[in-house]
Amino acid sequence: MDTLTRLEAIIAARKGANPASSYVAQLNHRGLPVMARKLGEEAVEAVTAALAGSRDELVGEAADVLFHLLVLLGAKDVSLAEVLAELDRREGTSGIDEKNSRNA
Amino acid sequence: MDTLTRLEAIIAARKGANPASSYVAQLNHRGLPVMARKLGEEAVEAVTAALAGSRDELVGEAADVLFHLLVLLGAKDVSLAEVLAELDRREGTSGIDEKNSRNA
Amino acid sequence: MDTLTRLEAIIAARKGANPASSYVAQLNHRGLPVMARKLGEEAVEAVTAALAGSRDELVGEAADVLFHLLVLLGAKDVSLAEVLAELDRREGTSGIDEKNSRNA
Amino acid sequence: MDTLTRLEAIIAARKGANPASSYVAQLNHRGLPVMARKLGEEAVEAVTAALAGSRDELVGEAADVLFHLLVLLGAKDVSLAEVLAELDRREGTSGIDEKNSRNA
Repeated sequence: MDTLTRLEAIIAARKGANPASSYVAQLNHRGLPVMARKLGEEAVEAVTAALAGSRDELVGEAADVLFHLLVLLGAKDVSLAEVLAELDRREGTSGIDEKNSRNA
Repeated sequence: MDTLTRLEAIIAARKGANPASSYVAQLNHRGLPVMARKLGEEAVEAVTAALAGSRDELVGEAADVLFHLLVLLGAKDVSLAEVLAELDRREGTSGIDEKNSRNA
Repeated sequence: MDTLTRLEAIIAARKGANPASSYVAQLNHRGLPVMARKLGEEAVEAVTAALAGSRDELVGEAADVLFHLLVLLGAKDVSLAEVLAELDRREGTSGIDEKNSRNA
Repeated sequence: MDTLTRLEAIIAARKGANPASSYVAQLNHRGLPVMARKLGEEAVEAVTAALAGSRDELVGEAADVLFHLLVLLGAKDVSLAEVLAELDRREGTSGIDEKNSRNA
């Protein structure tokens, strides 16, 4: 099983765990606004790492973005598979057209 | 090959294409600040979709986050594999400890 | 009357105008998630302008942040005066203590 | 003197202070990417407060946005007066035209 699918399963398993023993459970316990906020904050950190940080910082912040995106999707009961299917669907079109279809 | 790996390859192949015919080429042509900004903006859209949008909107915005994260990583020559390896590395620890190791 | 107070009054006056003739009315018509998203996006643009843009770009993006912050506050019926009063209140403490009181 | 102008002066005075005794000095000491990131993060918090928080939370987060915007501008030697002058300049046009002129 690949990393993101395995991570998704771990996050699902931890959602209802004791907040004192699991960061995922803590985030779910604190509620959706906190999970949404964390995604936004980690993305801002990835932005600054890309523009003014080291390569290692960007790797770390990109990992944080993926992790908190999966936590947020899990909290909304949206599966990674659905998001990947959407990306597959878009791949059918290409170049500028793909952009246009996204903005439609 | 899975979706994200395939998408990463497509983005790498399009990086140097004609900006008039490829959205990826256009983003690379416009430069790193634009690619970084796009990631941040799509994350903000995912935040608002999670808090105030439909399930479909969240799926679409999550796909946008993944797409623009891959574009940004590609522009910085950071591979998805490196980011996934970082997530794998973190999985070794669990719960709160994982959070603490991330913040160290 | 100073710029921000005047701008706040203009925004309040335009809130219920015809969306076809006023950007403020259009934003209010589209709803709170759009207004919130705009603030987040403009802040991301200010972040990238500060790190990788010109001085003029930063001035423009900072103006966009202030404008869309006032639009969002107006939509939530929060006055600029309340926000400034909160800043005045914090000024009473100083340095690191001020930070600590903010994080409490 | 109004709140924001006074706050701008306080921030300018603290920029070079001892980081151990002043939050503003600490931010300047940590560098521009940290100050830019803080603005982005506070804006994300204002976004979530507007969509899912209380009125008091929005007031607090809006104050944080203004504070960290002033810190960032100060670090780049951009004055609040320049940003307000840009807003005044835009007020000359109105409604949708103002939006168009911003996007030009």
